[in-house]
Amino acid sequence: MPELPGVGVGRGTASGPVLRMAAPLGEPDATPLEGDAAAAKAQVGEALAVVAADLGKRGAAAGGDAQAVLEAQALMAQDPSILDDVHAQIDSGTNPERAVFNAFKSFQDILAGMGGYMGERAADLGDVAQRIIAQLRGVHAPGVPESDTPFILVARDLAPADTALLDLDKVLALVTRDGGPTSHTAILARAKGITAIVGVTDADDLVDGAVVIVDAGAGVVITDPTDAQIDEADRKRAERLAAVNAPLTPGALKDGTLVPLLANVGSPNDGPAAVAAGAEGVGLFRTEFLFLDSPYAPDVATQKASYVALLKEFPGKKVVVRALDAGADKPLPFLTDKDEENPALGRRGLRALRHHEEILRDQLTALAQADAETEADLWVMAPMVADLEETEYFVGLARELGIRTAGVMAEVPSVALMADQVLAAADFVSIGTNDLTQYTMAADRMLGTVASYQDPWHPAVLRLVAQLGDAGRAVGKGVGICGEAASDPLLAVVLVGLGATTLSMTPAALADVRAELKNHTLDEARAMAQAALAATSAAAARAASSSVSL
Amino acid sequence: MPELPGVGVGRGTASGPVLRMAAPLGEPDATPLEGDAAAAKAQVGEALAVVAADLGKRGAAAGGDAQAVLEAQALMAQDPSILDDVHAQIDSGTNPERAVFNAFKSFQDILAGMGGYMGERAADLGDVAQRIIAQLRGVHAPGVPESDTPFILVARDLAPADTALLDLDKVLALVTRDGGPTSHTAILARAKGITAIVGVTDADDLVDGAVVIVDAGAGVVITDPTDAQIDEADRKRAERLAAVNAPLTPGALKDGTLVPLLANVGSPNDGPAAVAAGAEGVGLFRTEFLFLDSPYAPDVATQKASYVALLKEFPGKKVVVRALDAGADKPLPFLTDKDEENPALGRRGLRALRHHEEILRDQLTALAQADAETEADLWVMAPMVADLEETEYFVGLARELGIRTAGVMAEVPSVALMADQVLAAADFVSIGTNDLTQYTMAADRMLGTVASYQDPWHPAVLRLVAQLGDAGRAVGKGVGICGEAASDPLLAVVLVGLGATTLSMTPAALADVRAELKNHTLDEARAMAQAALAATSAAAARAASSSVSL
Repeated sequence: MPELPGVGVGRGTASGPVLRMAAPLGEPDATPLEGDAAAAKAQVGEALAVVAADLGKRGAAAGGDAQAVLEAQALMAQDPSILDDVHAQIDSGTNPERAVFNAFKSFQDILAGMGGYMGERAADLGDVAQRIIAQLRGVHAPGVPESDTPFILVARDLAPADTALLDLDKVLALVTRDGGPTSHTAILARAKGITAIVGVTDADDLVDGAVVIVDAGAGVVITDPTDAQIDEADRKRAERLAAVNAPLTPGALKDGTLVPLLANVGSPNDGPAAVAAGAEGVGLFRTEFLFLDSPYAPDVATQKASYVALLKEFPGKKVVVRALDAGADKPLPFLTDKDEENPALGRRGLRALRHHEEILRDQLTALAQADAETEADLWVMAPMVADLEETEYFVGLARELGIRTAGVMAEVPSVALMADQVLAAADFVSIGTNDLTQYTMAADRMLGTVASYQDPWHPAVLRLVAQLGDAGRAVGKGVGICGEAASDPLLAVVLVGLGATTLSMTPAALADVRAELKNHTLDEARAMAQAALAATSAAAARAASSSVSL
Repeated sequence: MPELPGVGVGRGTASGPVLRMAAPLGEPDATPLEGDAAAAKAQVGEALAVVAADLGKRGAAAGGDAQAVLEAQALMAQDPSILDDVHAQIDSGTNPERAVFNAFKSFQDILAGMGGYMGERAADLGDVAQRIIAQLRGVHAPGVPESDTPFILVARDLAPADTALLDLDKVLALVTRDGGPTSHTAILARAKGITAIVGVTDADDLVDGAVVIVDAGAGVVITDPTDAQIDEADRKRAERLAAVNAPLTPGALKDGTLVPLLANVGSPNDGPAAVAAGAEGVGLFRTEFLFLDSPYAPDVATQKASYVALLKEFPGKKVVVRALDAGADKPLPFLTDKDEENPALGRRGLRALRHHEEILRDQLTALAQADAETEADLWVMAPMVADLEETEYFVGLARELGIRTAGVMAEVPSVALMADQVLAAADFVSIGTNDLTQYTMAADRMLGTVASYQDPWHPAVLRLVAQLGDAGRAVGKGVGICGEAASDPLLAVVLVGLGATTLSMTPAALADVRAELKNHTLDEARAMAQAALAATSAAAARAASSSVSL
């Protein structure tokens, strides 16, 4: 019964048979075309039609956002320019698989070169090419396997297109070889409440059909489990389900210290689900949805309508709205510069808004108007604030335009280093642990080759959180957490120990965090925090906190 | 006699008449071609020839690196593909200026899209296009003005191509509207020892011929000076020249506290000049020159020869060598990934070396062999180290391969936050203030729109330096500075007050820093440092330190 270690997401437990995701197809040989060009073209044409029809069918079954993605892929499979290129390659003597590979590859490279949103579509195009090549070879397309019985999905990593199609009734748990606590798979698992362990280095050793136990709380996959172990896993699973389904109570530690649990939401439509999951308010309302896919900023009336729609879901409760956070991986043509060499270090967030102050003024005006018409307790904060000067600028402008409670995000290391000054001027601070980790470790949070640096457990990040927590306590102001870190139950306790006064997360994570908080007193949380601060690495900090918490 | 404030570079003073750099030409109208296409093509052909000849002539006059740049530009002016494009545009009815603009622009865009070294060549191509258009219009090309008498050059900003051609016998001082303390202009001024003030917001008010005083130490341009003011400026200039030409003594504070002053060098050829300027050793030997412009890493014997060449210039003195720092703006095809979205946050520095450990092993082996054959005191450090684990990796490997003194650069915020652990494991730390500032402020040091963030005087950066200084003092290990910050005389004193034990800089800055250190005791330096740490902005920190130092 060996155990394979990894990074657990949440506290879930599951047992069942492994089903592996098919590995990507290799690059086709460049061997010359054998036989007739016309026959080869016909063969490709047939494969394209089958793949397009299959994608369309899957889209219709999935519905929602996934449907849009899959229908776009179906169109790519029948793109006439790409088809022309495939035909030209076949005419020049290339075999059909290679012709498809080459033609899609050249379009992928063009898209990748455009970067940003278009760049991300390159992966979608690559997926279409893989499906067509699989069809030509007569093998299964790579991707999520299908099964009539529940299974534990094991993969190297999951692509967004894979996860959109996961049949949650069948997937007991996810295990991936790659990825860290903020990888796409981990974020998805948290959002959907799926038991998962990522970064299981030995995941390739797991074979189809073998029964394993996935214990996310312990961060291990147990292979060849005994019957007793399976019974224990089932008991833990039942216990967790009971906790998840327990009556919704306010977030609190074992000693009664209140820790309000708030929701991260991306549009007003997410409000009711957050309330149903027991959110005591909204800790991060992302307003980008109003601005993306638009050639200009929406007017005050349009924005106000959206803000009212969210605020009226939370009468008497706190709703923290983040001013438009454009730039980096969320470029906006009317606000940010697409030619930056390092957009994550560019004119983004408040820097971009300040350069186009009319957009910020409109947004704050719309928020103040929405606040006046609703009963929620509106707080507004600026993204990417560096120091006191920027804090004073934002808080001053927000007050001038009728916002009563104005604060700043802590994502740039400097704002944490200047926490004493910033908390004197802001009404509150909310820590965005994803970006704070990215800059503190100088490692792109979207880049696979440096993914191991993107771990909010790193003591360097926790030391900055501690500076903010101490500064908040000194002046009696709130220090919230709204990054992924808050949805890791054990880390959530440590963050409270470091001085966080509220925790905001994807609604699906609320139950686990609520349950874990109840296991610890404030003194314990502080002791766990001290152990983490003194550790030498993210893994050591997690281990040190765990051993204190036992 | 109003004063225009800006950021002074060094402590120099100068007075003289203003000469402005011509502003860039506007974008040519898209009006249709008038007259005959053949005549228009002949006109363009003539302009191309004149510009190419002029660039060639300037190159021959400049010599060295500048000659290579200018000769490459001369070739661009006669590139047959671009000429074909110009002709095609004229044939389709575009006027000659616009045809040149369009043709060069499309090539510029392609180069810019390639990023990195090729991307930077886009600016060179744009400069060539401006020269050709100026020739077609019969106006002066934008760029450095020519004069037979000495002048104070005023510009919005200086491009590298401009500065390569500066006639230092004629330029009394530089004043730029844009740019901060680490802008290209500031770095150049420091390297060449030119009196300069950058970031003078009102620089556009200065008109050709007006006599002004540039006082870099005070950070002001004095317009309409009185005779008494001019006399005072001349006296200060003479005093400074006397200090610069004073006998070379070891770097020390007024109370005798030694602060070794070291040189930053980029190739073994720079050694003799550093010794002549009074460098007490080398604080940063950049080894990239061995690897750039090469399709693979040089072998151990080739590297060793270069290291021996430098080390033998410094018998009995310290020479700190930085292991290859590839990535970000210095990509290497055999080591780094050119497709990173944010290369400054990518797999660069030690991260890239660890991924290709054989390159690091070869470099350390070559350094150990060179050390054995020479009398210098060799120290070796790794770039882009994040924490204890990476420190232990590098120090362990360096010791295994025969390096006696191994340390790390402090550029990533996390390494400063973990200074207590890192200084226990490393033999020394050297702070790269340019990158440390970039990451702490989350602002690309190469990006103009966020240049105001790139100021090592920011108290957030100084607080990280203080953590490193405190940790170094606690264990009795050296904490050096090798970023641009060390060459700002007042900041150099503050850095010593924060705990820096050595300062390394471009050799031309040594005299000013040596003179300024002699004005302050260690107690004063510490008081200046405390004032800077408590300030709220870079400008406030500078002002607070200045007033303590008076």
